[in-house]
Amino acid sequence: MARIRLGMVGGGNDAFIGGVHRIASRIDDRFDLIAGALSSTPEKSAASAEALGIPRSYGSFEEMAEAEAAREDGIEAVSIVTPNYVHAAAAKAFLAKGIHVICDKPLTSTLEDAEALESAVAEADALFILTHNYTGYPMIRQARAMIEAGDLGDIRIVQAEYPQDWLTAPMENEGVKQAEWRTDPARSGAGGSVGDIGTHAHNLACFVSGLQVESIAADLQSWGAGRKLDDNAHMMLRFAGGARGMLWSSQVAPGNENALKLRVYGEKGGLEWSQEDPNYLWFTPLGEPKRLITRNGAGASEASQSVSRIPGGHPEGYLEGFATIYNEAADAIRAVQGGASRESAMGVLPGIAAGMDGMRFINACVTSSANDAAWTKL
Amino acid sequence: MARIRLGMVGGGNDAFIGGVHRIASRIDDRFDLIAGALSSTPEKSAASAEALGIPRSYGSFEEMAEAEAAREDGIEAVSIVTPNYVHAAAAKAFLAKGIHVICDKPLTSTLEDAEALESAVAEADALFILTHNYTGYPMIRQARAMIEAGDLGDIRIVQAEYPQDWLTAPMENEGVKQAEWRTDPARSGAGGSVGDIGTHAHNLACFVSGLQVESIAADLQSWGAGRKLDDNAHMMLRFAGGARGMLWSSQVAPGNENALKLRVYGEKGGLEWSQEDPNYLWFTPLGEPKRLITRNGAGASEASQSVSRIPGGHPEGYLEGFATIYNEAADAIRAVQGGASRESAMGVLPGIAAGMDGMRFINACVTSSANDAAWTKL
Amino acid sequence: MARIRLGMVGGGNDAFIGGVHRIASRIDDRFDLIAGALSSTPEKSAASAEALGIPRSYGSFEEMAEAEAAREDGIEAVSIVTPNYVHAAAAKAFLAKGIHVICDKPLTSTLEDAEALESAVAEADALFILTHNYTGYPMIRQARAMIEAGDLGDIRIVQAEYPQDWLTAPMENEGVKQAEWRTDPARSGAGGSVGDIGTHAHNLACFVSGLQVESIAADLQSWGAGRKLDDNAHMMLRFAGGARGMLWSSQVAPGNENALKLRVYGEKGGLEWSQEDPNYLWFTPLGEPKRLITRNGAGASEASQSVSRIPGGHPEGYLEGFATIYNEAADAIRAVQGGASRESAMGVLPGIAAGMDGMRFINACVTSSANDAAWTKL
Amino acid sequence: MARIRLGMVGGGNDAFIGGVHRIASRIDDRFDLIAGALSSTPEKSAASAEALGIPRSYGSFEEMAEAEAAREDGIEAVSIVTPNYVHAAAAKAFLAKGIHVICDKPLTSTLEDAEALESAVAEADALFILTHNYTGYPMIRQARAMIEAGDLGDIRIVQAEYPQDWLTAPMENEGVKQAEWRTDPARSGAGGSVGDIGTHAHNLACFVSGLQVESIAADLQSWGAGRKLDDNAHMMLRFAGGARGMLWSSQVAPGNENALKLRVYGEKGGLEWSQEDPNYLWFTPLGEPKRLITRNGAGASEASQSVSRIPGGHPEGYLEGFATIYNEAADAIRAVQGGASRESAMGVLPGIAAGMDGMRFINACVTSSANDAAWTKL
Repeated sequence: MARIRLGMVGGGNDAFIGGVHRIASRIDDRFDLIAGALSSTPEKSAASAEALGIPRSYGSFEEMAEAEAAREDGIEAVSIVTPNYVHAAAAKAFLAKGIHVICDKPLTSTLEDAEALESAVAEADALFILTHNYTGYPMIRQARAMIEAGDLGDIRIVQAEYPQDWLTAPMENEGVKQAEWRTDPARSGAGGSVGDIGTHAHNLACFVSGLQVESIAADLQSWGAGRKLDDNAHMMLRFAGGARGMLWSSQVAPGNENALKLRVYGEKGGLEWSQEDPNYLWFTPLGEPKRLITRNGAGASEASQSVSRIPGGHPEGYLEGFATIYNEAADAIRAVQGGASRESAMGVLPGIAAGMDGMRFINACVTSSANDAAWTKL
Repeated sequence: MARIRLGMVGGGNDAFIGGVHRIASRIDDRFDLIAGALSSTPEKSAASAEALGIPRSYGSFEEMAEAEAAREDGIEAVSIVTPNYVHAAAAKAFLAKGIHVICDKPLTSTLEDAEALESAVAEADALFILTHNYTGYPMIRQARAMIEAGDLGDIRIVQAEYPQDWLTAPMENEGVKQAEWRTDPARSGAGGSVGDIGTHAHNLACFVSGLQVESIAADLQSWGAGRKLDDNAHMMLRFAGGARGMLWSSQVAPGNENALKLRVYGEKGGLEWSQEDPNYLWFTPLGEPKRLITRNGAGASEASQSVSRIPGGHPEGYLEGFATIYNEAADAIRAVQGGASRESAMGVLPGIAAGMDGMRFINACVTSSANDAAWTKL
Repeated sequence: MARIRLGMVGGGNDAFIGGVHRIASRIDDRFDLIAGALSSTPEKSAASAEALGIPRSYGSFEEMAEAEAAREDGIEAVSIVTPNYVHAAAAKAFLAKGIHVICDKPLTSTLEDAEALESAVAEADALFILTHNYTGYPMIRQARAMIEAGDLGDIRIVQAEYPQDWLTAPMENEGVKQAEWRTDPARSGAGGSVGDIGTHAHNLACFVSGLQVESIAADLQSWGAGRKLDDNAHMMLRFAGGARGMLWSSQVAPGNENALKLRVYGEKGGLEWSQEDPNYLWFTPLGEPKRLITRNGAGASEASQSVSRIPGGHPEGYLEGFATIYNEAADAIRAVQGGASRESAMGVLPGIAAGMDGMRFINACVTSSANDAAWTKL
Repeated sequence: MARIRLGMVGGGNDAFIGGVHRIASRIDDRFDLIAGALSSTPEKSAASAEALGIPRSYGSFEEMAEAEAAREDGIEAVSIVTPNYVHAAAAKAFLAKGIHVICDKPLTSTLEDAEALESAVAEADALFILTHNYTGYPMIRQARAMIEAGDLGDIRIVQAEYPQDWLTAPMENEGVKQAEWRTDPARSGAGGSVGDIGTHAHNLACFVSGLQVESIAADLQSWGAGRKLDDNAHMMLRFAGGARGMLWSSQVAPGNENALKLRVYGEKGGLEWSQEDPNYLWFTPLGEPKRLITRNGAGASEASQSVSRIPGGHPEGYLEGFATIYNEAADAIRAVQGGASRESAMGVLPGIAAGMDGMRFINACVTSSANDAAWTKL
């Protein structure tokens, strides 16, 4: 099948996440990155494009959407990897032209932006895919499938956490660019750690358990001197249907790099998974010894094997999980181009609904915390 | 030094915790167990005493307190290992006679009982020691000492959890005696998991961090059909001085045996410890690689070495941690017999204050949960 | 049942292993330690005995054997915890008086001594028990039982290792007493690491697999400057029946405390166990996920539960494994006193045969290494 | 920099390793795969090429070498990913045309072939790179750099192992293609497990320690019924300079997927690394606690950071390590095209010398084992 012609907005210079998207788009060889508006100025964009071997560079995403839509060989899809506050405008520009959008998370920096984008997606003749990349990990897929199949019985408890330590010291005052925009409400939105990483934990908890969070009691804190956004957040969760949970997000917990961890317990068993060791899934059927299920190993099911590339014991990592989102995005794009409905084409891919859930999660956290941790509906 | 003459109340038959106390009292050879009121009837008590080689058996603790106090070679101390609701009365009986009390936790089954006992302790001419045994683990001692020495800087976040799985199915309806009394409010008190194991996590969080919990927002649940007490509890914590925390206790999380875990984070570093692997303490000085400190290994400090018995790499376990409480109780008893003040004799040993903290913790959990998780002062 | 009257030879001062034996003898309350010849002089012995609360002290083991045998209330059994070169003479003195012997390993310092002791045991009217304490770990018992039951099918491969690091630097030249005698051929025998810890790994490999080592190819080295005995040894093993194995013992591998590890593989599955985390046994049935079997947890069998004291998730350690040897020694002594045959009384307890196997193992290692690692029969 | 024009020999159908090379060549975007002779027949090759979107397909590698060398836009480099016995002929064909060769390991199936290829490489005007991919793991690079920098002092002991379990049952008799050729001497060469995976462990031991194996004592076994090549091998190693080691390779150890593990001990410290958890490197400076160094985390040095793509705590895996070999191959090719010497261009990339070492290792293993494990020079 021909590769999909891809453009990119953002991701110039030394931006971390742009490079990740580019590698992820190459791993399964489904995309050709041929156009970009990579930086905030035409000059910087052109320099980045040349350095990356991207043939067509534009001065702005508006210009790019216009020009590419007009070409016969224009891009079919675009990756948006800018800071959060640019997501909505950029996505709407491409959707309006029927160009499929692959957008980094969280959806936007404000709920208003998010709602406007939601409308745009509903009206668009194109797909909107949100890269909640952790859903691409094979053992996450297997965990979801096991719960769906009833291996845990009714779900009672969900424990999610995502601690990091990179903001323990006030890095934003020391010229670290990542730290600057991620702690700036104008560019990141109302959530600090809850927006940046709490959304990942929330998304994963729902994706795996198959449950929706109904209300949240949240206690947000800022430990960095003068920091405006939360860098540590404690939450209690109530899920629709009755399950309960806890969620911890932190950027100030020394000894944690990207220690996203999910534990789900039901009446018949329990599952545990850790992002830093993603090829392992621990499964305890009640009353039996704990089992270590490995990616593509004995015990791996179709759900994980179908998104694995190499044999068990040869670890896949973050980039492969991310690549699965791109690979499935390619499938989905080709499917709708072939006439499939958007819903059927999306499959388990995270889209606008997951994005809206994330925005409501951030807002509920901030609101609850402002109300002394009162239970707040999403 | 001569061994201390010890009696025991409760602990007959196949009671789990009585046997633990007896082994703990023998390991360091500081006690002779010579008297008991081990069961609910004189006949059962006598049978248990004979089976255990305990020379003097009594029909009740009242009788035992009376008789032993009258003997020249009577017991100097007594271990109380009954279900919670008996603790207060038994302890008061011995304290009134000047016999030192070593009592299992939680302190009592009601706050009223606890307050009465508190008064009795204050007036008594004897020590009251509460076996919060996890404080006896060497690496817990080291963690406490490191925090006290400032190795973590100001403490910001405390994460404590104690999940088990033994009540996932309704064992109390299947004739399991342990499950029966631990799920019965009349014998256990108002707290289920929060009383039985949440108190351990709370105690350890405070013991190690050196902080006091000021208020709690708690969400208690009962998953077992018809169960009257909580078997799963989610809590957010606010400590005096500003630190924040979370606490999870559960008896319905399949795959967890006694998975008590404590993590403490400060501005300069983090510590992690797990009861199931107690000889290890993970320490991350901010900006440096994580270090695995082992009991009696390189990196072990005086605080842990002084309560270790064997070389590093030869694991000590639960019984040795428990024995340390007994060993220090022996030191304390000899010290007050030699004229030391009760306070100086107790050292870091948990006593009535820790017990009252635990009772207030249980009550705050139950009250908060009844008020939709409103913040509740301890 | 009445406690067994016990004496001890060696174990004065700060000797490590004597204290271990004493604790182990107390844990299950089967022994009263009432007599000792604890040190090399009557004065030191008496001082140690008094400090330990042992009522009768002797100036030598010969004197003690004589005197205790003559008393009606004399010791029934004796623990020998001296350096290796004293084992044979002491053991023979007590065996000759019909006093049961519990002896530390390795059996003796020379094969000649061992053979003389073997004869003495054969002729004695008393039991000889060798404290290969690692055989007392519950999960080792379970591993042995699983292999005996055929859970692994025919055994093909045995991987054993026991690395330490305490002799990496030349401690024996720095006044460390343990290091002095353990590196001195006159007091330890022909084997350094192979005698001190290689024998443990060899014993455990055979105990668990149910196989006997038939021949060894060994490459022994001394890394410590001027050290006369091996401190690192590499071995390849051939077992009777065809299985093969490797064994590594080391005292110079930085980062290893007492990292005894055993892995056994058969045609139907594999088992893995590590002494530093002894409550876990990893079992992989071929073609299924790895299972984590825990002591007294789900999956624990009678073989491990019968030698466990406390619930799963509450770790037992080195001292409890050691105590199991003492507990079973008490059973065995009472059994032969009651008329049972010595063989039936011993059960799985290690005795003179295990000791002779260990001596032959040491000699084969030394001989093979001297012959450029030629295969050498045991 | 322009991408390198790449061809591929082998790797059609569902061959495992061909797909790995293709992904590895894409991850860092340094190659365009534009030509292939992917299968044993022109028809199959063409079908595979079309399915993979490779524009030019050839019926044989000879034809491809001829035709591509004649084109101005012909391939600059070729990846050889056939079964072992084809490596030598294919590599020589391309080297003779000045086309750089990236070849899978082991070098060839016979020592004769290897020597002929060695000559061809010496005379060629092109680079020869052998994909000992495990050398591309960041923490392996760091381990090598730490040892080179003297962090461990003089190296004493190297423990290497590579157990798998996929041949525990006789898969080659059940139609598994991978199992068929890997157990066939005509296609694999004289070594079974020692050739397939023992060479990886040997290569890594030398790469990291900076030492060369001087002689080997090997005990090779075949456990699979009727299997002609070894599937389990025990080895003792003597390194030039005096260090000693052990090496275990196995394909019949249930519970092991690709459990390559390396441990190196020197007079000042120890290092441990496991391929299944490749983002971690354990370092113990003698007398200090063990440190967990993570890829791109605190403690990561330039040696590992320079071959890392994403932040610490976001795991990289097997494919990224493999991609580093391709990335450095691209650097090397551009360097020699720019006039650099072959030696300087290669840097730490494994080449013909590493390949010859591997062949001598296989031969020494087979020879030693045939001589009852006599020490055999490489």
